[in-house]
Amino acid sequence: MKGVPEIVAAQEILWDLFMYGVALFMGVLAAEACKRIRQSELIGQVLVGIILGPCVLGILRPSQVFDFISLIGALTLLFIAGLETDVRTIMRSGAAATILAVGGFIFTVILSMPLVLLFSGSMILAIFVSLALAATSIGITIRVFADFDMLRSWEAQTIVVAAVLDDLIVILLLMPIVKALGAGTISVEKFVEVLVPAGIFFLCMFIIGVLFITYIAPKFWLIKTRGGMFVFSFSFALLVGFLAACAGLSPIVGAYFAGLILAETDLKDDVLTEISPVAFVTVPIFMINIGMKINVGVAGEALLMGLAISVVAILGKILGGILAGKFHKNDNRSSYIMGVGMVPRGEMPLIFAEIGLVAGVINGMWYAVLVIVVLITTFLTPIVLKYLIMGGKAPHGKGDKGKT
Amino acid sequence: MKGVPEIVAAQEILWDLFMYGVALFMGVLAAEACKRIRQSELIGQVLVGIILGPCVLGILRPSQVFDFISLIGALTLLFIAGLETDVRTIMRSGAAATILAVGGFIFTVILSMPLVLLFSGSMILAIFVSLALAATSIGITIRVFADFDMLRSWEAQTIVVAAVLDDLIVILLLMPIVKALGAGTISVEKFVEVLVPAGIFFLCMFIIGVLFITYIAPKFWLIKTRGGMFVFSFSFALLVGFLAACAGLSPIVGAYFAGLILAETDLKDDVLTEISPVAFVTVPIFMINIGMKINVGVAGEALLMGLAISVVAILGKILGGILAGKFHKNDNRSSYIMGVGMVPRGEMPLIFAEIGLVAGVINGMWYAVLVIVVLITTFLTPIVLKYLIMGGKAPHGKGDKGKT
Repeated sequence: MKGVPEIVAAQEILWDLFMYGVALFMGVLAAEACKRIRQSELIGQVLVGIILGPCVLGILRPSQVFDFISLIGALTLLFIAGLETDVRTIMRSGAAATILAVGGFIFTVILSMPLVLLFSGSMILAIFVSLALAATSIGITIRVFADFDMLRSWEAQTIVVAAVLDDLIVILLLMPIVKALGAGTISVEKFVEVLVPAGIFFLCMFIIGVLFITYIAPKFWLIKTRGGMFVFSFSFALLVGFLAACAGLSPIVGAYFAGLILAETDLKDDVLTEISPVAFVTVPIFMINIGMKINVGVAGEALLMGLAISVVAILGKILGGILAGKFHKNDNRSSYIMGVGMVPRGEMPLIFAEIGLVAGVINGMWYAVLVIVVLITTFLTPIVLKYLIMGGKAPHGKGDKGKT
Repeated sequence: MKGVPEIVAAQEILWDLFMYGVALFMGVLAAEACKRIRQSELIGQVLVGIILGPCVLGILRPSQVFDFISLIGALTLLFIAGLETDVRTIMRSGAAATILAVGGFIFTVILSMPLVLLFSGSMILAIFVSLALAATSIGITIRVFADFDMLRSWEAQTIVVAAVLDDLIVILLLMPIVKALGAGTISVEKFVEVLVPAGIFFLCMFIIGVLFITYIAPKFWLIKTRGGMFVFSFSFALLVGFLAACAGLSPIVGAYFAGLILAETDLKDDVLTEISPVAFVTVPIFMINIGMKINVGVAGEALLMGLAISVVAILGKILGGILAGKFHKNDNRSSYIMGVGMVPRGEMPLIFAEIGLVAGVINGMWYAVLVIVVLITTFLTPIVLKYLIMGGKAPHGKGDKGKT
């Protein structure tokens, strides 16, 4: 019954509480600042992570709890992405979006892989980084379209579908490849060893999905507890995430598929509403945690490489846009708008950077390079996109049309 | 660049993810089951913690991450309690509620302290346990009143205010006392040492509160980021919680005061709406974590003591009800309804049990005793309360009135 001196709670958990509070608070301020200059809050929050992190001010320091909140943030992001994916729209939008996605994907990989190989001398790293850079995060693009009242334009619709598609391509390809690369050698046996559990996972997801949509979801009105339906859905996302991890994939892949499954049920809208506040208090931590892990010591070297790789990463997506434009409308401005709209690399490459770092596939410097490419592409996109939209005849635009 | 075998994420964080998913999922099922038998979900969730915990199935095991989510759950609960407290209503309801609160508090402490002292032989433990048992959690009472459409009755209103008051009394008294008891001796110097930082904290809270309500809150419409206002409020609760911990109080006291401050602003309703989903995914973990920490090995002995202490804990509150009834209406049934309505010990004693365990003031067996008293009182209240309400003339009741 002797008392220990620390009464209220263990010291460590209190520091986690402090870090969590400070990170959220600074995250809001940073998001606000970015909103004012019409930039993505991602930029502000990663910068908050760098500045408050161990390399600069040292207020935030790595912790297991912080990593976990960050993981929940990433899972929540992908769960929401899955919930917002409409498989039928993807089917309909078909050809142009597929060309935009696959084109942008291939050009990005082809252009960036040799450059990364040149810089690093490691084929494994080149494969990983170039794949991670192929995913698109169109949050900031969507916001620009919204500003110009162009959300229902052909370009916007195509971009949305293409972004989902190339995320899907990268999610499906990257994890088995990372797993196979993890051993440091590339061999057919290794790939088979990795692809079999992944294949089993996808088969299971299909069966679970069909069962869930057909038999379980229609019974959800039976849940009477306040929030019960939401917590059930959320725990479903967490558990499918865990299953994915067991199959050697990333947990976020599981959360994405959980979202896809729930998107086919009546629960979709309610879950989307209720998941928002959970995203609000976890996603900023994911962004800030990314910034915290950047080693400012290597930032000089990383910055130069990041700039060079950003150039090819931007070029790759614009070439994809030109290809898709040629196929459909053969209108230059429309092609460029689609291409530039696909340029921003957001959460996805950050999530992959995180995975690569944990897996030991990339080191701190290449982690920093990926983050720098994300920051540069996210920063430049709205500026260039606005110029393109205002510089011509916007389909439903309200922008200045006299500058052509 | 050598790959480590564990690719997707550290093993430990994945286990945390699994535990979190399973706990939430089972928590929903348990809450549903309790709802069906018109019982508090608290009971089901604590039982889930016991069954899945290390003593029985061993699926859930103690982890820092779990403790943190649990802390956030407790903070969220108290933040919401603070938000829902209307200081003016407390002022108005005045006398009867104060007598009900103070009466129930004093009778509970006076009756249970000798009993605990008899069982344990430790004065420090007796003070702590009897104080922890004085707090009321009227969630289940409110639900019964709602079932009988009695929420606006005099009894219900008085109970709500009284429950807030005795929580406040216990929160304010218990922490300095625990802190003072922590050293194992009771001395005047020790109390002063503890009360001074607590006093400074309350003074700071008053100043921060006035500044916040007058200058900061009216500027909140300036926040344009989606969810920004909510995240700001939530981080405010976390940081005030941390401040409270620095002053030697429990973080939850801080969260409660943060809620009280925000309750006086226009943000109240929005924050209450958005905090709900966060509560849904953290509060069940708090309840389950409580169950996990119960050592089933000592449950036999704890059960007997828990039963004995439940009797006096129930008696204490009923005596408080009789006292309050005498003062105001002098109606027996009304007195008993108020007394029984104050019987359930819910989150509060659980939070204090947690604090006591961490502080080393109570051991595993007394932790179990406190949880058992919580379970018994929470379980019995709705049964007895329904009988009382249906057994007489309910003020606005729709119950069977012919049984008197």
